[in-house]
Amino acid sequence: MTVRMLVDGRPGDTVSAQDRGLSYGDGLFETVSVIGGRAPLWSRHMARLAEGGRRLAIPLPDAEVLASEVLAVAAGMAAAVVRITVTRGVGPRGYAPPVASMPTRIVAAFPAPDLHLASEGVRLRVCDLRLAEQPALAGLKHLNRLEQVLARAEWADPSIHDGLLLDVAGRVTCTTMANVFAVIDGALVTPLLARCGVAGVARAEVLATIRTAQVRDLVLDELLRADELFLTSSVRGILPVQAVGDKVFAPGPVARAMQRHWRGLGFPLELA
Amino acid sequence: MTVRMLVDGRPGDTVSAQDRGLSYGDGLFETVSVIGGRAPLWSRHMARLAEGGRRLAIPLPDAEVLASEVLAVAAGMAAAVVRITVTRGVGPRGYAPPVASMPTRIVAAFPAPDLHLASEGVRLRVCDLRLAEQPALAGLKHLNRLEQVLARAEWADPSIHDGLLLDVAGRVTCTTMANVFAVIDGALVTPLLARCGVAGVARAEVLATIRTAQVRDLVLDELLRADELFLTSSVRGILPVQAVGDKVFAPGPVARAMQRHWRGLGFPLELA
Repeated sequence: MTVRMLVDGRPGDTVSAQDRGLSYGDGLFETVSVIGGRAPLWSRHMARLAEGGRRLAIPLPDAEVLASEVLAVAAGMAAAVVRITVTRGVGPRGYAPPVASMPTRIVAAFPAPDLHLASEGVRLRVCDLRLAEQPALAGLKHLNRLEQVLARAEWADPSIHDGLLLDVAGRVTCTTMANVFAVIDGALVTPLLARCGVAGVARAEVLATIRTAQVRDLVLDELLRADELFLTSSVRGILPVQAVGDKVFAPGPVARAMQRHWRGLGFPLELA
Repeated sequence: MTVRMLVDGRPGDTVSAQDRGLSYGDGLFETVSVIGGRAPLWSRHMARLAEGGRRLAIPLPDAEVLASEVLAVAAGMAAAVVRITVTRGVGPRGYAPPVASMPTRIVAAFPAPDLHLASEGVRLRVCDLRLAEQPALAGLKHLNRLEQVLARAEWADPSIHDGLLLDVAGRVTCTTMANVFAVIDGALVTPLLARCGVAGVARAEVLATIRTAQVRDLVLDELLRADELFLTSSVRGILPVQAVGDKVFAPGPVARAMQRHWRGLGFPLELA
């Protein structure tokens, strides 16, 4: 039998009802794209997880153990999305982290989403919910994701792929499930994520590839004047933005160049 | 065998590793004090849970079902703390809530904490972490509690009972596990919780009892000039504050009156 989920290294699909991941959202996750037994952005996933573990003081499993478990659950799948969840583990009732925590790790494979959106581009809306500013958690892919759940619940129209999230001051941060890049006056810009938002591994790959890209505050009006707009996601790669509400964009040369780069990393052709 | 935990009404201690409570902190909880088979603040717990279910669009179990499960897990315990957790249940990967969600409910009994603190009062610190402002979640006892985990991890000194939490603007909000009341110029004041913080059921009981109490913004300097300071908690009742950092307070008449009220509700003598 093919096992698609491992809990602490063993086949299983349950966790303790007293796990702090459930009690408090006390943990971290990664969603890793695995293509033909390879995870092209693996080292960036491990770097972000390590940063989260350091900032939340959650001891992390060995990256080699995680790598072997990711490949095990994705075995035989041409394209999989593997979610790695690491929580602070089971603990007594109360917020105080146990002195010696025994983290729980869950590694689960899912079918990869359809990637046809990469060529035609996607439509976005601007979410009503504003992200709260919490520098202590900004950038991390932690398990406290009610803001994203509420924002994603704002629309049901399947033609809208994702929603732009602004912070309380009206600055663009990210979407519910991706990061945002804009070409403005010839420069590639992506929002600073020092107050809120998730710092995606695909965003990190773009920033490492286009060294001149600017990381800075970006208000919605400026974003809507961009010559080109695209999303980055570990699961969906580079997605040109076709429209934000009524404002229409054409897929541009930077997104197309990044899609070629993605293909060079080993992601499937549909992405380019 | 005495069952101390029910998951969806059945004895058990695990949940699906794909429960949205774990994946996203997508759920709510209550910690209910049960004394000799009675939960004195039950209707307030159910009111808050209903409010959370409404705001997060999570269908809730029937309150009578929850009541019978709470009494079942606390059976034979003179004083118990029963945690009720309700999540949006198992769902496919992704933030979008399932159209028809099947919530998960966990009802678990724990021994009540030692209540000797009620007479002598407790020492507090001021936490470094500032609470983020998120009106969409303010007041709710939801499962996204990383801020409380990080704040509680700031100290290990067992003589410090709890930490005051300020918001980003420096306003006092609550502590990591209780609400705060202050007597200032003869008036009882408790912070407004429109931007962040948990609106405790014990706080609601105090507000319903002392109708002249003010609910308003309160900065730390003003709080520290109070004549009297106390905490309210469903689990620990009314706790006079003895000190905040170096600033010393004496247990005052309002806290003592509220402790007598608590005893009248059916809570044990040690609380008064």
